[in-house]
Amino acid sequence: MKEFFKVTDLSHVLGYALDFPRVETQDIPLVESMGRILIQDINADIDLPDFMRSTMDGYAVRAASTFGASEANPAYLTIKGYVPMGATPDFSIGAGEAAGISTGGMLPKGADSVVMIEHTEAVDKTTIEVYRSVAPAQNILEKGEDFKKGSVLVPAGKQIRPQEIGLLAAFGIEKVTAYKKPVIGIISSGDEVVSIKDMPDPGQIRDINTYTLAGLAQKSGAVPITYGIVQDDFDDLFEKCTAALEHSDMVLISGGSSMGARDYTIEVFSALPESEILFHGISISPGKPTILARSQNRAIWGLPGQVTSTMVVFEIVVKPFIEHIAGFLPEHKKHFNLIARLGRNVSSTQGRADYVRVKLFQKDGVLWAEPVLGKSGLINTMVNADGLIEIGLNTEGLDEGAMVEVIPI
Amino acid sequence: MKEFFKVTDLSHVLGYALDFPRVETQDIPLVESMGRILIQDINADIDLPDFMRSTMDGYAVRAASTFGASEANPAYLTIKGYVPMGATPDFSIGAGEAAGISTGGMLPKGADSVVMIEHTEAVDKTTIEVYRSVAPAQNILEKGEDFKKGSVLVPAGKQIRPQEIGLLAAFGIEKVTAYKKPVIGIISSGDEVVSIKDMPDPGQIRDINTYTLAGLAQKSGAVPITYGIVQDDFDDLFEKCTAALEHSDMVLISGGSSMGARDYTIEVFSALPESEILFHGISISPGKPTILARSQNRAIWGLPGQVTSTMVVFEIVVKPFIEHIAGFLPEHKKHFNLIARLGRNVSSTQGRADYVRVKLFQKDGVLWAEPVLGKSGLINTMVNADGLIEIGLNTEGLDEGAMVEVIPI
Repeated sequence: MKEFFKVTDLSHVLGYALDFPRVETQDIPLVESMGRILIQDINADIDLPDFMRSTMDGYAVRAASTFGASEANPAYLTIKGYVPMGATPDFSIGAGEAAGISTGGMLPKGADSVVMIEHTEAVDKTTIEVYRSVAPAQNILEKGEDFKKGSVLVPAGKQIRPQEIGLLAAFGIEKVTAYKKPVIGIISSGDEVVSIKDMPDPGQIRDINTYTLAGLAQKSGAVPITYGIVQDDFDDLFEKCTAALEHSDMVLISGGSSMGARDYTIEVFSALPESEILFHGISISPGKPTILARSQNRAIWGLPGQVTSTMVVFEIVVKPFIEHIAGFLPEHKKHFNLIARLGRNVSSTQGRADYVRVKLFQKDGVLWAEPVLGKSGLINTMVNADGLIEIGLNTEGLDEGAMVEVIPI
Repeated sequence: MKEFFKVTDLSHVLGYALDFPRVETQDIPLVESMGRILIQDINADIDLPDFMRSTMDGYAVRAASTFGASEANPAYLTIKGYVPMGATPDFSIGAGEAAGISTGGMLPKGADSVVMIEHTEAVDKTTIEVYRSVAPAQNILEKGEDFKKGSVLVPAGKQIRPQEIGLLAAFGIEKVTAYKKPVIGIISSGDEVVSIKDMPDPGQIRDINTYTLAGLAQKSGAVPITYGIVQDDFDDLFEKCTAALEHSDMVLISGGSSMGARDYTIEVFSALPESEILFHGISISPGKPTILARSQNRAIWGLPGQVTSTMVVFEIVVKPFIEHIAGFLPEHKKHFNLIARLGRNVSSTQGRADYVRVKLFQKDGVLWAEPVLGKSGLINTMVNADGLIEIGLNTEGLDEGAMVEVIPI
């Protein structure tokens, strides 16, 4: 039995992510900020709302004027006027008075609550009946009730969703300073790999990995740049790596991490400027022969040639590195994976974490994760899968019915 | 009590989606196809793999030559040659013979399996010891084992993921015909709404809804086009709606569905060419006053003015319509929502579905959904939320600890 390399534990491997600097930053229009990450907190420069606002269509009143009102015993209020939308009412109301108001309207002076229009009836042009009492502050937002001046609107390191965009719009933030999308250089290596434009000869295979990795990079919020196919040749690989490192925040090379080709990869990584091999081999399956090097503070990966292995390594290992350089702060990263019941027994080898492809289905209100059968190199196992489950380092396997966390793919 | 409009059940409302035609189609390069939906199945024009391929580094053998081999009693095989990557081996092997092979290499004639290199030792340049037996077809992929010629690679109506891109690359598919991304026209209405560039006067509010809806549209895979703010005025709204319908596959108007403004919206929708009001009012909360009309076969929505209500209506009601016109087929739409335990009692009104914002957290290995406190109009309730839970039409509420499905937001 020949020992190829010492494998490194996954948790140790993931720790290296913190050694890499974040990507550069840029100013972007608010409308393009979906999914981006702020470099610093944005704070409220005014109160939101900045005036007492109705949250219902109805009548602005003093709550006390409605106390005790019911269908059988309505309160009669005098209509003092109607609040125009978008303006300060030029009148105030007192006890026994009401002002017509729409959702979003500004309460007139003297009012502290709004009666819903459904709970009123107009008696004539100047009088309404109110059938229900309201409490002070009911159906209104008080000044600063949503966000107080000075409070944090969106913190640094949190990914922007539609609600954060809306919130920033409320404060007139037209531009934000965010991390750029990481640029990921992608290289496929292997003498057997041909362009997807070509009809492969017997023994050849089209370049699946470039396209798969480009898709994975996009899905992770990054921008892929593809550098094509290199032969298993030192000079060719060195040249492509150098070009990719120049224009990328991270470089992924697939295919060069087995046998002869792997030796080239290690040699090339070692020859790159300011380079260091961080690890060679991870205690996971598939994906064991993965290599990570650093050159000029950028991560350069040697990923397996089998696309199914490379996909697993990307999801489990590479993605956390991309998230780190993209500016994610762990405290704002929310990953709540699906929990499902395992559909059959799965065995595993101790001393490594196994990632098993599963298909999800609902049955009688229970979510089941059914392991996808087939040899690990088959692309159909990835196409048929909805997710991955981990069989941990110190587990010999999991029994049918066990609760498992599903990593969606 | 004034009855404004008859509400329609959500299930009935969602049924209208099928009445709208799908968007147009376009040819796009494979590398840009992430998240897109094919208009027709793509089939395999060759077998994948197209030759018998090794999935390991090692030696191609006849399995029978290794039967009975062990550490104590190795099999001795003669090295017949090495398989070059990307080419057909120009030799064959027989009983007692082996050929060096790398992962992805083509098996020479006569070989039916591969012994992993870890289970061998070179004795000299022409002989290896094999310490473990292999079964026929072990560590190889047979011709057509992944996909057989003629089988469906990616079906129509399924959203393309990285693994589907990789698979299509394997078959040399450089371009796919997919549905275009739906174009969603967005209009904000309300006399109180001002541009985010402006400092709002008392009683005014910046245009939160345009930005939130644009973010939601993007998140749903659509392309937003924003048409700015209209006053509560028939002519202005009619003109903007006409312009938006001309350039969009769907139009969203927020803010015009309450009281006076609602009347304009209904009037404008009715005046649009080939138009029909499909419903006005849904039995959900928030979001009850939502309007849907059809004009020239396009959906045009009147959404609530409160952004938090509009977000809920978008997630629950509008999104399924976007998915339908985008070409999703229900059988390929996989939505597996998170299941969590409810963190406190929540009451609800019978006869409507209530959507409650929740924050998720893990505690002792259990996922909890804690309802977010605060008035429903507060944006902070959406910013603090990770998802929505539904309290069904015929439920008065849910108890603390109940299992709930979480719709991520």
